[in-house]
Amino acid sequence: MPRLVARRAKQKVGLVPGTLVHIGERKIEKVRIRIIDYDETQLEEKEVEKVEECFPFKDKPTITWINIDGLHDLEIIEKIGKQFGLHPLVLEDIVNTGQRPKLEDFENHVFVVLKMLYYDQEKGELEAEQISLIFGQNFVISFQERVGDIFDPLRERIRKGKGRVRKAGADYLAYALLDSIVDNYFVILEQLGEKIEDAEQELAVNPTLETLQTIRTFKKEMIFLRKSIWPLREVVNSLERGESSLVDESTLIYLRDVYDHTIQIIDTVESYRDMLSGMLDVYLSSISNKMNEVMKVLTIFAAIFIPLTFVAGVYGMNFAFMPELGWQWGYFGVLLVMAIVAAVMLVYFKRKRWL
Amino acid sequence: MPRLVARRAKQKVGLVPGTLVHIGERKIEKVRIRIIDYDETQLEEKEVEKVEECFPFKDKPTITWINIDGLHDLEIIEKIGKQFGLHPLVLEDIVNTGQRPKLEDFENHVFVVLKMLYYDQEKGELEAEQISLIFGQNFVISFQERVGDIFDPLRERIRKGKGRVRKAGADYLAYALLDSIVDNYFVILEQLGEKIEDAEQELAVNPTLETLQTIRTFKKEMIFLRKSIWPLREVVNSLERGESSLVDESTLIYLRDVYDHTIQIIDTVESYRDMLSGMLDVYLSSISNKMNEVMKVLTIFAAIFIPLTFVAGVYGMNFAFMPELGWQWGYFGVLLVMAIVAAVMLVYFKRKRWL
Amino acid sequence: MPRLVARRAKQKVGLVPGTLVHIGERKIEKVRIRIIDYDETQLEEKEVEKVEECFPFKDKPTITWINIDGLHDLEIIEKIGKQFGLHPLVLEDIVNTGQRPKLEDFENHVFVVLKMLYYDQEKGELEAEQISLIFGQNFVISFQERVGDIFDPLRERIRKGKGRVRKAGADYLAYALLDSIVDNYFVILEQLGEKIEDAEQELAVNPTLETLQTIRTFKKEMIFLRKSIWPLREVVNSLERGESSLVDESTLIYLRDVYDHTIQIIDTVESYRDMLSGMLDVYLSSISNKMNEVMKVLTIFAAIFIPLTFVAGVYGMNFAFMPELGWQWGYFGVLLVMAIVAAVMLVYFKRKRWL
Amino acid sequence: MPRLVARRAKQKVGLVPGTLVHIGERKIEKVRIRIIDYDETQLEEKEVEKVEECFPFKDKPTITWINIDGLHDLEIIEKIGKQFGLHPLVLEDIVNTGQRPKLEDFENHVFVVLKMLYYDQEKGELEAEQISLIFGQNFVISFQERVGDIFDPLRERIRKGKGRVRKAGADYLAYALLDSIVDNYFVILEQLGEKIEDAEQELAVNPTLETLQTIRTFKKEMIFLRKSIWPLREVVNSLERGESSLVDESTLIYLRDVYDHTIQIIDTVESYRDMLSGMLDVYLSSISNKMNEVMKVLTIFAAIFIPLTFVAGVYGMNFAFMPELGWQWGYFGVLLVMAIVAAVMLVYFKRKRWL
Amino acid sequence: MPRLVARRAKQKVGLVPGTLVHIGERKIEKVRIRIIDYDETQLEEKEVEKVEECFPFKDKPTITWINIDGLHDLEIIEKIGKQFGLHPLVLEDIVNTGQRPKLEDFENHVFVVLKMLYYDQEKGELEAEQISLIFGQNFVISFQERVGDIFDPLRERIRKGKGRVRKAGADYLAYALLDSIVDNYFVILEQLGEKIEDAEQELAVNPTLETLQTIRTFKKEMIFLRKSIWPLREVVNSLERGESSLVDESTLIYLRDVYDHTIQIIDTVESYRDMLSGMLDVYLSSISNKMNEVMKVLTIFAAIFIPLTFVAGVYGMNFAFMPELGWQWGYFGVLLVMAIVAAVMLVYFKRKRWL
Repeated sequence: MPRLVARRAKQKVGLVPGTLVHIGERKIEKVRIRIIDYDETQLEEKEVEKVEECFPFKDKPTITWINIDGLHDLEIIEKIGKQFGLHPLVLEDIVNTGQRPKLEDFENHVFVVLKMLYYDQEKGELEAEQISLIFGQNFVISFQERVGDIFDPLRERIRKGKGRVRKAGADYLAYALLDSIVDNYFVILEQLGEKIEDAEQELAVNPTLETLQTIRTFKKEMIFLRKSIWPLREVVNSLERGESSLVDESTLIYLRDVYDHTIQIIDTVESYRDMLSGMLDVYLSSISNKMNEVMKVLTIFAAIFIPLTFVAGVYGMNFAFMPELGWQWGYFGVLLVMAIVAAVMLVYFKRKRWL
Repeated sequence: MPRLVARRAKQKVGLVPGTLVHIGERKIEKVRIRIIDYDETQLEEKEVEKVEECFPFKDKPTITWINIDGLHDLEIIEKIGKQFGLHPLVLEDIVNTGQRPKLEDFENHVFVVLKMLYYDQEKGELEAEQISLIFGQNFVISFQERVGDIFDPLRERIRKGKGRVRKAGADYLAYALLDSIVDNYFVILEQLGEKIEDAEQELAVNPTLETLQTIRTFKKEMIFLRKSIWPLREVVNSLERGESSLVDESTLIYLRDVYDHTIQIIDTVESYRDMLSGMLDVYLSSISNKMNEVMKVLTIFAAIFIPLTFVAGVYGMNFAFMPELGWQWGYFGVLLVMAIVAAVMLVYFKRKRWL
Repeated sequence: MPRLVARRAKQKVGLVPGTLVHIGERKIEKVRIRIIDYDETQLEEKEVEKVEECFPFKDKPTITWINIDGLHDLEIIEKIGKQFGLHPLVLEDIVNTGQRPKLEDFENHVFVVLKMLYYDQEKGELEAEQISLIFGQNFVISFQERVGDIFDPLRERIRKGKGRVRKAGADYLAYALLDSIVDNYFVILEQLGEKIEDAEQELAVNPTLETLQTIRTFKKEMIFLRKSIWPLREVVNSLERGESSLVDESTLIYLRDVYDHTIQIIDTVESYRDMLSGMLDVYLSSISNKMNEVMKVLTIFAAIFIPLTFVAGVYGMNFAFMPELGWQWGYFGVLLVMAIVAAVMLVYFKRKRWL
Repeated sequence: MPRLVARRAKQKVGLVPGTLVHIGERKIEKVRIRIIDYDETQLEEKEVEKVEECFPFKDKPTITWINIDGLHDLEIIEKIGKQFGLHPLVLEDIVNTGQRPKLEDFENHVFVVLKMLYYDQEKGELEAEQISLIFGQNFVISFQERVGDIFDPLRERIRKGKGRVRKAGADYLAYALLDSIVDNYFVILEQLGEKIEDAEQELAVNPTLETLQTIRTFKKEMIFLRKSIWPLREVVNSLERGESSLVDESTLIYLRDVYDHTIQIIDTVESYRDMLSGMLDVYLSSISNKMNEVMKVLTIFAAIFIPLTFVAGVYGMNFAFMPELGWQWGYFGVLLVMAIVAAVMLVYFKRKRWL
Repeated sequence: MPRLVARRAKQKVGLVPGTLVHIGERKIEKVRIRIIDYDETQLEEKEVEKVEECFPFKDKPTITWINIDGLHDLEIIEKIGKQFGLHPLVLEDIVNTGQRPKLEDFENHVFVVLKMLYYDQEKGELEAEQISLIFGQNFVISFQERVGDIFDPLRERIRKGKGRVRKAGADYLAYALLDSIVDNYFVILEQLGEKIEDAEQELAVNPTLETLQTIRTFKKEMIFLRKSIWPLREVVNSLERGESSLVDESTLIYLRDVYDHTIQIIDTVESYRDMLSGMLDVYLSSISNKMNEVMKVLTIFAAIFIPLTFVAGVYGMNFAFMPELGWQWGYFGVLLVMAIVAAVMLVYFKRKRWL
């Protein structure tokens, strides 16, 4: 699971606000810059070595999508910032991966920070990555921590001209990126949901301390998910309200769709939290039940044999004058008495439903 | 119980927004299309094979209610969408049964998604179905996942001309459909309520681990109900505020009535949640009480017989010189002492209210 | 306690909205209709057989209070509805006793539904009754489920001309009715409060499973009270804001007074809920404490006598060569050793504060 | 602790609203009326026998503070009400000590009800008293249930002309009274805080059932404090917003100061509530820990001695042919075996960290 | 940990509002006054003995930052107050270290109170210090309880002219101070986070009562942090909304940045609270699990040996006629039976998964 608090603090304290410091794990070797430039009729796609190669596209009327994988090369970020007129604080937010999802609306561009989640099947852990989007009149710039495959279907759609994307503007492209990310949350939630149901099954069959640890891990993941998705709701909402002049009215209905999905995700996370709380209750009760079971076994054994042992002890005494000891049927009589005592006990426990 | 998260994710990721994909179980073999077309004086009712047969009704001034059972035939949905000018995202929502209840107000039609609930008496489980309503100036289109009987009384009323329905417009018809669905929630809650009271009764008499499972199932059903009904409140509320020009003022008081019912249902769900929490507390206490009971039995047996066994053990020792062993009344004296010890113990436990 | 969900559902599903069906228990044999007609100078009071006898009062400028006890005679309700121009949905709400408290403001009358509570001392249970009030320019109509005595002091005040009531309008009369009902909540809370304090006392002295049941019953009653009183707050508040033209400005301060009382009642219910939660904690701890007590007794007995029994067992062995057995003071020596062991144990438990 | 619900109900039900009935304990023998009349240059202070002696001050331009200790003499209250034009409902609120803190703004005076708290060191209990303030253009009337010393420093300041009080108006005097009361809450909270910390200390050392009772008492006191202080916040806030024309702008900053203090008190109460919940958790865990301890002692004793006793029992059997019994070193061999078994057990428990 | 309620009460009750009394610990011997006066081109920095030396800077157009470490010298505070036209209540708040974070906007200066936190690594405790900031057109005055190093990097930036600080106004300097403080919260949270993770590790390995105490201490620290940071949010928010004319528009985006950080800190504190609650659950379950373990050991020992001891007891009886005693293989037969009983028991417990 990603840390609840990103290690941002020590490196940053005391620096000039707006100083670029890459905070977070370096997840990729070399920064990869890909450009797709398109309008309804034409499409140009290339991967560039130097960031400067992107700049000529800026002044063309076509839609330009610059996708940057890797945040550690601060020079690239700085050059883009200069070229596209981004505020130093925006650049600082892009390279500091401990951001809370947020939207900032500048006059000629909108800046959005999001969390993208992966579920690492091997480790069984949530992984988070920060994605920053900047879109203006005719460009979208996306920053990722590493090369991902989540935008591939979108790229394919652009290439093939499927859907509205080639006809619509940069705002629609930004929406499509957002939509890909939000759709991905559903995948994560489904995977988590299956794991949770497995844990529930296990809990019903054989609850162990490990089951508790599993429940707790899920709870922590839900805390993390919640922390990522609640602010996302505000982000999408403020886009969907149509306050930015960069968002075309025809895109608003699509953003409303994303907003509905976000609400649905939040609902689901809350439902899972409720489920996990319920599982904890079941776990605690099953421990109590088990202890009850153990106690009953002990008590049944003790209550049956302790009186019998006492009787045996009595006739093991060495008193000179113990008349029963001389009786011919004394021994068998005592055995009979013992059997009766045991039977009475068993009936008693049967009645108490302990057996 | 329906899944908390509908399996929507994997099929959808990366598709063009607005692509029609039927998500959910296919609950019916063949799509069934029924039309009722009426005004105050005349009524026409028929079941059609081809969706195109519905379209002539569209331009007639009479109210047309098209009821479509089954969502898997995407062609039908698409044709209707084209004919009635529905947005692709609306069509997508209709066939994706994992929607959250919501209302979308377009210029010339209003789109409402709802959850209809059934209580499957055999399985003892809640079943959910998605219902979509679209109403415009003179038409209502309803989409259901399977053929249901919930709208039959309404159909009967239209046929017989009972109530306002034949005199009022499409908005009143839409209200009447909504009202049928909301009324049905009361039936569900009543059935659940009876089951919960049964479980409460059982809890008081003989709480077992199964009782806990039952309580948990109810809790999960309440989470599901809540998830379905909370957004319904917003839906009805936004209709009832009269913001849509398609809703006549005279219908508003009826919508207010539905709104009141929705609030009442929410109240009831919350009350049940509180009750179920209380039942969990009782369950946990009753486990503790049982363990207490078991412990007391053990302790009474142990405390009475352990000292006696000790005494018997003492006189079972083989020391050469043990004067008591030679006494004539030694044995009976010891038996008497044992009886006294046991009696003292019993009095002690009586005082402690353990007996 | 009244049911949390009134059995409304099954009879109603599929009926035309506005159809009159009396839902709820029939608490009275014959409907009783009483009229008080008054102004500052004159007063007429009578009990009528037929509802039509009320109607002449309607057009007189004097204030007319029609009090109807019993809701099952739908014909009476319908006639009143027709005469006073009430909406069919209002009439439906009057006879359906499962309503949530609410206020509806029509142009020429205001409709208020409330819950009246009784505490049945014999059964030790809360009883609820639905009261509907309709007031217009110069009339107030009140509907009760059975003949009650709660309005008697008000009637007396009207007869004797005490207070403002004879000088003020129908809105003041409606306020006075509301005030009687809200004042009655205080009585209920006081009675419940005494019972809760009794239960608390009992809990401190001898907590049993019954105490838990009592606490739970109170909790459920608090849920019910809350459900009745929270919406009342909105009702009074919307009256008190003076939005209705039927409420005179001079009455507003009185309504504010009722509003203050409602808030105070809600506060008290919340405080009781907190108290009851605290009592549950005490109950659970006292169970744990008791078990601790039981365990200590068991452990003390076991820990003292088990070693002693072992020693006795050793000297009960039949080895041919056991030198101690032949010693003269062997027996007494062993007894001494046993006494010392027991004493050490006792000191040890004393130190552990188990004794 | 004061009762959570004041006994107001039974005496009041059915009375004309505005009827004066003193509800609450009579805490003082004879009503005491004190007047301070001052402006910047002069000061007159006296204690009067008859309330009528206050009235001449009313029309003087100087600030008049009438302080009335004791609420049971309804005649005095009524005369003041008449003289100062107070609404009957205000008078009713003054003498009914079960009020919730509130502010009512009339045209020419403002009415404030508050709770004053004392901590009775002897009984270790919170005591509450109701204080009503009425201030107009040039007068302040304060009603207390008994003679208190809380306003003495303020009186002294007026006499000595310290601070702004002699220069400012009646609104500042009212503020100063409010400030004295709110400052007193800090004293109460400090005293309670010390007691809570004592209880926490005790909890860490030796938690008993009494500790639980203490925690619960504090919890109930916090419920009570909360009930008193939350509405106070609204009272001060509505004064501080400067809506009343009776409050001078220069006084607003002082009211904001009081408001800050109120928020701080609420914060503190909430923090104490959190602390007390934490203490309950610790209490419950310490019970469980103790039981664990007890169980371990029992188990260690049982697990060591039960096998040994069994061995002793075996060689206590009276079989004719038991070869070991004849061995010379049989006895000592058995003793050795026993010692080894015990040692193994001890090592085992050591490893399990039970020792 | 700092006290949840500062000891403010007793010294203050009854004093004239605005009286300067230093409340809180005296953390420094002698008050230290440092001045930095700068504009874009020049810089003057000095440490003065007498506060009067600061005043000439006031009327210069350059930005003046007066930093005062130590609050106990009331004369200095008073002189500054007089010189800069501060309200007596502001001065009172500065020297009373029990303030809740708040912002007060006066016409020509803004007053901000904050909490600065330190984590004392040695004591393992949070330490809090109150910081007051006052900024006007061209001056910032900061008051600290003791000499700290938190503003040193900012001083360095001013000296070296790094960043915007030398070019911007007093509002930017105030922002920079705020930013330093908020950044420091991240450091604290990181340190606390590491400690919490350590405790979590410990909890998984060997939960003891001390672990519980540690968890509780963290919980209390979270309560304290929350109390300090929630109001900070409002403070920054009200600055960021740009309501004060003293805050330049270009500074707003920086304040928004601080606001984002504050939200992030609040999020993190809430996440930690959730984590700590989860740890408490784990602790309680692990106690129950341990007890279960103990009980199982006891039960296994008891259930195996009690029946065997009983059998041994039977053949230890001294009856004259016990045929088995005479059998040659009687003894070994009994031993065999015993071994079988023990084996059966072990298999039984194996099946029950107790072994």
